[in-house]
This record gives sequence, structure tokens and C-alpha cells, in this order.
Amino acid sequence: MLPSPSGSRNSLTWQNIAHRAQEHRDATIALVHPPIPDIGELPYDSTQIPKTILLPSEISITESDPAALVSRLASGTLTSTEVTTAFLRRAALAQKLANCITELLPTSALSRAAHLDDYLKEHGQPMGPLHGLPISVKEHINMKDLTCNAGFIAWHDKVPDANAHILDILLSAGAVLYARTTQPQTLMHLETSSNFYGATVNPFNRSLTSGGSSGGEGALVGLRGSCLGIGTDIGGSIRGPAANNGVYGLRPTSYRLPLGGFSATMLGQEHIVPVVGPLSTSLAGIKLFMKTLIDAEPWIREPSLVPMPWKTDSQIPTLSGGSGGGKKLKIAVLYDDGVVRPHPPIIRALTSVAEKLKDVEGIEVVEWTPYKHDHAWTIISSLYFADGGSEEIEAIAASGEPWRPLSKFILKEQPTVKQGGLSIKEMWEWTEKRDAYRSEYAQLWGDVDFILCPVGPGAALPLDCARYWAYTSQWNLLDYPALIAPVTKVDVELDKKEADYVPRNEKDKYNYELYEAEKYANAPISLQLVGRRYEDEKVVEAMEYIQEKLGLPWAEYF
Amino acid sequence: MLPSPSGSRNSLTWQNIAHRAQEHRDATIALVHPPIPDIGELPYDSTQIPKTILLPSEISITESDPAALVSRLASGTLTSTEVTTAFLRRAALAQKLANCITELLPTSALSRAAHLDDYLKEHGQPMGPLHGLPISVKEHINMKDLTCNAGFIAWHDKVPDANAHILDILLSAGAVLYARTTQPQTLMHLETSSNFYGATVNPFNRSLTSGGSSGGEGALVGLRGSCLGIGTDIGGSIRGPAANNGVYGLRPTSYRLPLGGFSATMLGQEHIVPVVGPLSTSLAGIKLFMKTLIDAEPWIREPSLVPMPWKTDSQIPTLSGGSGGGKKLKIAVLYDDGVVRPHPPIIRALTSVAEKLKDVEGIEVVEWTPYKHDHAWTIISSLYFADGGSEEIEAIAASGEPWRPLSKFILKEQPTVKQGGLSIKEMWEWTEKRDAYRSEYAQLWGDVDFILCPVGPGAALPLDCARYWAYTSQWNLLDYPALIAPVTKVDVELDKKEADYVPRNEKDKYNYELYEAEKYANAPISLQLVGRRYEDEKVVEAMEYIQEKLGLPWAEYF
Repeated sequence: MLPSPSGSRNSLTWQNIAHRAQEHRDATIALVHPPIPDIGELPYDSTQIPKTILLPSEISITESDPAALVSRLASGTLTSTEVTTAFLRRAALAQKLANCITELLPTSALSRAAHLDDYLKEHGQPMGPLHGLPISVKEHINMKDLTCNAGFIAWHDKVPDANAHILDILLSAGAVLYARTTQPQTLMHLETSSNFYGATVNPFNRSLTSGGSSGGEGALVGLRGSCLGIGTDIGGSIRGPAANNGVYGLRPTSYRLPLGGFSATMLGQEHIVPVVGPLSTSLAGIKLFMKTLIDAEPWIREPSLVPMPWKTDSQIPTLSGGSGGGKKLKIAVLYDDGVVRPHPPIIRALTSVAEKLKDVEGIEVVEWTPYKHDHAWTIISSLYFADGGSEEIEAIAASGEPWRPLSKFILKEQPTVKQGGLSIKEMWEWTEKRDAYRSEYAQLWGDVDFILCPVGPGAALPLDCARYWAYTSQWNLLDYPALIAPVTKVDVELDKKEADYVPRNEKDKYNYELYEAEKYANAPISLQLVGRRYEDEKVVEAMEYIQEKLGLPWAEYF
Repeated sequence: MLPSPSGSRNSLTWQNIAHRAQEHRDATIALVHPPIPDIGELPYDSTQIPKTILLPSEISITESDPAALVSRLASGTLTSTEVTTAFLRRAALAQKLANCITELLPTSALSRAAHLDDYLKEHGQPMGPLHGLPISVKEHINMKDLTCNAGFIAWHDKVPDANAHILDILLSAGAVLYARTTQPQTLMHLETSSNFYGATVNPFNRSLTSGGSSGGEGALVGLRGSCLGIGTDIGGSIRGPAANNGVYGLRPTSYRLPLGGFSATMLGQEHIVPVVGPLSTSLAGIKLFMKTLIDAEPWIREPSLVPMPWKTDSQIPTLSGGSGGGKKLKIAVLYDDGVVRPHPPIIRALTSVAEKLKDVEGIEVVEWTPYKHDHAWTIISSLYFADGGSEEIEAIAASGEPWRPLSKFILKEQPTVKQGGLSIKEMWEWTEKRDAYRSEYAQLWGDVDFILCPVGPGAALPLDCARYWAYTSQWNLLDYPALIAPVTKVDVELDKKEADYVPRNEKDKYNYELYEAEKYANAPISLQLVGRRYEDEKVVEAMEYIQEKLGLPWAEYF
């Protein structure tokens, strides 16, 4: 996967830089005690390995709900040192299984954990709502005095002098930062492959991708090497990894969570606003993350944020009050966006969920007719690289590193990326088209409360094949909150290829040809619940209700 | 002021287009009954004329608080026909006094009023919270089937096929649209002069400007030809006119009120977001406008808006609960931005208010140190015309109309407007600088609640002289809510020129030399109260409190 280093070890070829990054990563992992033994040949499903390596107490801790963990940490039933050690161990193992770590931080994390344990003893109360909880962090989110390269070899020595705003808040709330995770070259893949580390793979099926760009987080949380991690999303980068690895992930509405202090290209771009958000092993973890950050009133320091509290009262009183006389919750199911038909497992999961939802009290199910989703992709892909991708082209060229296939795909193979960049006038025209589309789409909602839809055109795809963004980027364009939850796994018997399907277009053909049930064995299948702008709380609440009523997920992940 | 028409009446020279626009305006005014007589030579202060022309009942209606009017309209004590007739009459007169009208809509307004009167009789309740209330509208806010030219002669025949979103809401709430008001060429002046109509002047002193770009609204509301009007503001365009004409005006935080359906250049531009907002004869009118629009949930139709209700509970519980033990309201007074020193009447008013505030229970007064306001102007003036002003240049060239002096000033004489426009990369760089400045400024607030400051470097200035935007554009750059309220008037005895002042720079010198107390006789002096982003309600509430405690305003306006 990764070209091997060549030339003198001391000359700064891109290969040497990558090699040093790997050595650094391995050195930080080697500090974890007790050390993780060598594992040898890995099976395609690596998720069964942790139970053969870790102690029962470590398994118990790392497979706990983060909300339960903070409760036990706050009461002193568990120490942060115990919890942090367990997650460090499982994260070190996860690296061997899925190649998802850029570095572990055992020294600082355990020192912090000890400090928190002392704090609790001394004060008799926790430091904050995340007291003692280890949280994993995507690499490009600035950590003071640590490199933040955003997937570019040339940026290997960029060292911020301050934490990202979001980390300051999490630390004030008592979190422990212990693991940093992989991301792709440019950050603009729906997979996670870079010339630093090669590809992060899917722990449930190592021939498949973990998704991206927060694919290090996805694989790590999927393997329970983290129970709560931070990703970022401008086209699906939280949601693809959450879905591919069978965990929860939320792309919040823009301007709710702090974005200050990230290393990335296109800073200052606000046509399509990137967001930061959580990946977690539970919905409670998602809520804990959102509430903690928003309760800290991040808009005081970062005035671009909207001062909107995280609502804890029910946003769906009809449901929470039981069978009231109120309006039913109306869920519109989008089976297929009309451009690329999802693979059989996705259609099966969506159909099953929709059918079962029809029997749930208080819920009405209708079908959603997609509205110009191809046009939506044209708009968003024109706005992503309004400068023609010049910053990415320059950052790749600066080290001489090769273009990863998916960098080439998104920057060089999209007819909407204009060489040399758009003029300001063209950019304003695209922005107007965006706003017109947003208004048109908003009109279609009527009394619909949510759209339930695929997260992508398939489960996790084979490496270098995630080339259809529109099932997730659609909601970035519209800036709707979108929540991922696991439903089941691919079943090679039930999910046979549609034999006589005639593809509608080239993209559809590409996707159709990617599928053979056997290739996707054991891959998680997840769905996406989408709400109106700023209805983040309502989306999470509805998913809790659906999950409870349907007994989701329908498969064992651990 | 206005070049006289030349050439054939039938050929479409710009002069003929302008002449036709004036004829159309006059024809609509001629439909108002009883007609307004000729007035002859006008004194410099035209505000005393209405009482010599209008009936006592008309004076009583038009000088009523809009909140009182809607209450009497809702109860049927007043009919919409009476109220609309009174405002049509006074607006027709205002045109003669200040040149502030582009057209009156007597036929449709009276028909609408009659419909509303019937509605009340039939249903026994008002149509909505604005039932029967006449509202005036700046010309570039789209009205179905009426021209919307944004001050460009070449756009004289642009006729939208639908109302602006905001008008649909106001109509649903029961408003009557009866008057459309003047705006400057390009919309980007802090005055109101166009080649359609020449200059709108200040009714309190006809040698001074009414301000702009919502200067038609300012003069009309100032003359009580409207009690509630709609303006727009990207650099001071609601606030200057409100201040210059002694009325209230609010620049709300962005994305609270609907912006859909305006005729203007630079659509799609979102680096400095324009806002729409009210001008009114009372603070109650400002609140009525905001609450009515936001209660209509405009974010459903226009999803760029933030779904944030208009809060009616006290945002300053310390004050509303009387002398509690809570924190005092901390008001920081900005006397001078360090770049251009305000004229003596402004300093006098600000000092008087600040001194008196020190004695008010529950209020603490501190001095605000301006932070790089010159840098702020560099940023915002670089972002305004990111395309190099090409749309404006093209729109002016299309008819051959001459450039108005202030169009030339803002587009051609600013070193920050880059010919040919910025590149996308440059634009992102400016956006980053904007965001950095916003964060830096936000840090300075600490526990300050409001900034109290001038609205401009003087009271209403002589025509074509409003060339220093930074006392208002500062808050557009920062996107803070800013409220204007009248304080007093220029007093030629008290407000003598500072004899030995040494200007700091060219802009300061220009402003200093503009001043001689006599030139500004009778001009209203207003102040600006600025709050943190999205604290619109708190700003209005604080101003109510200040006004009550200080007995503001300290001058008679009518």
C-alpha cells in the first residue's frame, strides 16, 4: 500500500518523513504497558481479537457506554487511571488491527488521569461532566506542541502553539486526551489513506475501508479503542466512518460547535461550512459530547457560533408523553437518490426499518422523493474547491509525495473543479444557486419531521473505491443535522447482487460493479436520520425512540 | 442637484428614465385625497410644516406610537382606512419636504385597508399583530409587479414577480403597504442620492443629508409620514438614517430576519451579510416588527435563518427585578474610535448620557478602548466589493448615468477595492482576518454588557460629505446588534467647534473641517447601543431602561 522508504535516512525525502512518522507512532505505542503482543496473521474480521488479548476488566471498561463511564468516574467507582490505561491498551491493539493511530499520548494522558484522580479525592467532586473520560482526536485538530499535518507530508513539522478551542473545552470538562487518529491526504476523501501511514482499514472486514476522512476515529471507536472521539465533516467525514464501523456519529448543524484551531486547507472558506462532531459507541455519548460543549457557551470565545443552548427538554412531546392526541412523527424514507442505487444490504436494512416503523405507535412513514440530488452534487463540488484546489496542489507538490487515488479523484477528476479557481462573481453565482436549492428543498419538507436514508451507496467499500459522496454531502450542502446509527451487518445470503439491474449512468454502473455480497461479509450497515437545520436535539431524540422501539441494532458488534 | 432631462422625451436616455420615474411618483402622490397643497419656499427646518397642513386627527394618528395604533386598530377604535389615509397624506407631504418617496400606493393600500376593516367586522378579531398598520418600504425590497431598481437607472424596468419574503410575512400579519422610499445609486452610500430623484434631505435641516442608504425611510419616519418602515444595512444604512432623523432603528444580528427577494448587486456575497431591519418612531415599534417577523418562523421558508425565537422574557433580570443583588449592567462608552473624532454635539450627548447613567441604579459605566477600528475598516472595505465592484460599474455604465460623488468615493477612491476583484484565495485570507478580528474583539468584552457609542462622526452631515462609515460598519463587521435612539439636538451655543484641535490624519481633518455649529442647527443627535451577537432583545430592553431612567430624548422632535 505504502511505497517503501528509499534514499538516505537523513535526507528529508517524503518517504523518510513518512517513515519517521511511523517510527514516532510506534514509539508512543511502545510506551503503553503492559505492551500489546504481536498478533501475527490477521483474519479479515479483526473485531474478535481484542477479547483474546485484553484483560476482562479492560474489556469491560472499553465496552462500556461513555455515559456510564463518566458516572462511575465521577463517583470514584472507577479511576481515570484505570480507564485511561484500558483505552490506551485497546487503542494500541487497534493500531495493529486497523492502522488507525498517528500517535498515542500515554505519558501525558496518564499524568492527566492521575491529576484527575487526585482532584476527585481532594475536592470530592468531579472536575466537570467528562471527568476522567479518555477522548480520541482526529489528527488535524490542533494539539499544542504536537504536529498537525492534515494528511500532507509537507506539513509534517507544523506545530500549533495552542490547542483547538474544542479541546480546551473538553479538557476543562475533565477529559483525558490519549489518542490521535489517522486522516487521508487532503482530508477530502471518504476513506483514510495517506502517504504517512497508508490506508486505515475496516476492522469488521479488513479488505474494506474504514471510511473517511475521520476514518481513524471510525476504526478506533468501532474497535472500542475509544468510546468517544472527535471527527470533522464537510461531505460525510464523520458519517461515513461511523457507518462503516457500526458506531454512532453526528454531523451537527453548522455554527453549533467550535471550529477554531484546526489545521486544514481552505481556511476562510465559508461557502460550505465544515463541522466538528462526535463519533461514539452510544447515543448517550453523542449527547454527552454535544451538551458538554454547548453548555460551555463556546460562542463567547468564538463569536461565529450561534448562542443556542443544547435543549434537554423533549423536542418531540408527542412521543415522550406517550400516545397523546398530537401529530405523529412523520419519517420520510429516501431509498435511492435517483442517481446511484444503493447496494442490496442498504436497501434491505432501510426497507426492514421502514416496515417495522410503520407499526410503531406515534410514527408515520412516507416515501421521500429525491429532489435533484445530482444538481446538489454539482453545486457542492463546485464550491468545495472554489480556488481550483490550489492549496492542496501546492501542499502535495511541496514534499513531492505522490497523489493518492482519491485525492486525484476529488480534485482532478471532477469537472466542477475549475483550474485556476472561480472568479468572485462565479463564486457568488454558485452561492446563489446553493441558497436557491436550499430554499427549494426546505419547501418540500411540509410536515415531514425527518428523512431516513442511506449513508452511502453501499456498506464500507473496497479500498480506493469510495467515489460517490452524495448520500452524505447532500446534507452538508443543505446544512441539516444528520445522525448515523448501526442497524445490522451484511448477510451474504440475504444480500445477493441484483442480477438484472441496468445501471442508469456511469456512476451507477461503477457502484453496481463494485458489489458482490461475499466481498462485503460482516460489514456493518448503518442508516442516517436527517432533520431540519438546527434540530440536532430532535434528531438524536427520535433516534433514541426508534432504537428502543425497534430493538436496534439487529446484530452483535462486540 | 439633478441634471435636467435632455434629448427626445421618447428616447431612453438616462435623463428620460429619471424624468419618467419622477412623473410616476408625482402621479401616485396626486391620487392622495385630499391633495396636499403647494407649500412654496421651504424653511431649513421643515418639521413644523405638517401641523400647518394636516388635520388634527391626521396629526394625532401619525404621531401615535405604532404599538398604540395596532391596539386601537385591533379593537376597532380606529379603522385601517382612517390610519392609512392619514399616513398617505403625511407621506405625500413628506415628499415635498424631504424628497423621500419613490411612489405611494394609495389605490392598493386603501383597498387593502378596506379589506382589513371588513375582516375585523366579519371575524371580530384582527388578521394578525399588525392588523391595519401602514408600513413603508425601501424601494429595493421586492414588491410584486412594481419596479425595483436599487438606485440604478439601468434597472428601471426590473419588475419582480413575487414579493420579498419579509413583505409576505408582514402582509399575513395584517400590514398595509402604502409607501416606497428612496435609496442611493448602488445602495452603498451613507446618504440617499440617485440620478432618479436627486438627494433626499434632512427634514430637520434641509441643508443636511437624511443619511443612507435607507435615507428615504429615515426622512419619512422622521417626518412621521411613517411610524414603522423597513430598511437594510450592510454598513450603517438603517442606523445613519435613523440617527439623522431622530428616530429608532435596529440593525439586528444577521440571519434573524428574512432576506429573500431583494434587488441589489452582490447577491450571493456572504462575507459581510446584509441585514434588514426596522426604523420606527418608538422602541415599541422596533419590538413589534421584530417579534412579528420572528414569530412567523421565517426559517422554514428561508433556511439560512437561525430558528431563534424572539425572547419576551427579560434578558436583564437584574434590572427588571429592581435592585436585586445581581451583577450591574456594565455599559462601556466609546467616545472616539481613535481614527476620526466625533463632532462636538456627539461628544456632548455621549458625555451627558454617560454621566447621568453613572447615577442610575443597577448600571455601571466604564470607558471602552477602541481596538484597531482602522484595521476593521480595511477588512470590511476589502470584503464589500470583493469582485472589484464590477456589478456596480456595469450597472451604472449600462444606462450612461453619471457616477454620484459618493458612489465614486466608496467604489473608486478606496484603496481596498481591488480592480478586477480579489482571487478566491485573497478572499479567504480576508475572511480569516475578519474572523480573527471578530475573535479578538469578542475577548475584549469580558463582563461588559453593551457598548454605547456615536452613530457617526457627526450629526447629519452636509450633502455628499458622509465619508466615514466606521462608527457603524464596525458593528457590521462584527455582526453585533446595534440600536439607534434619539438623545437631543444640536445646540449652536453649546456645540462650538473645538478651536485648537489638531487632526490626527486626513480623514480626521476632513471631518474636523466639516464642522461649524451653525451649519448643523436643529440636527438630531442620536446614540448607538451595541450588544453581543444575537443579543438583540437584550439591547432593546436595555435601551428601554436607559430611556426611562434618563427621560430620553431630551429634545422635542414634534
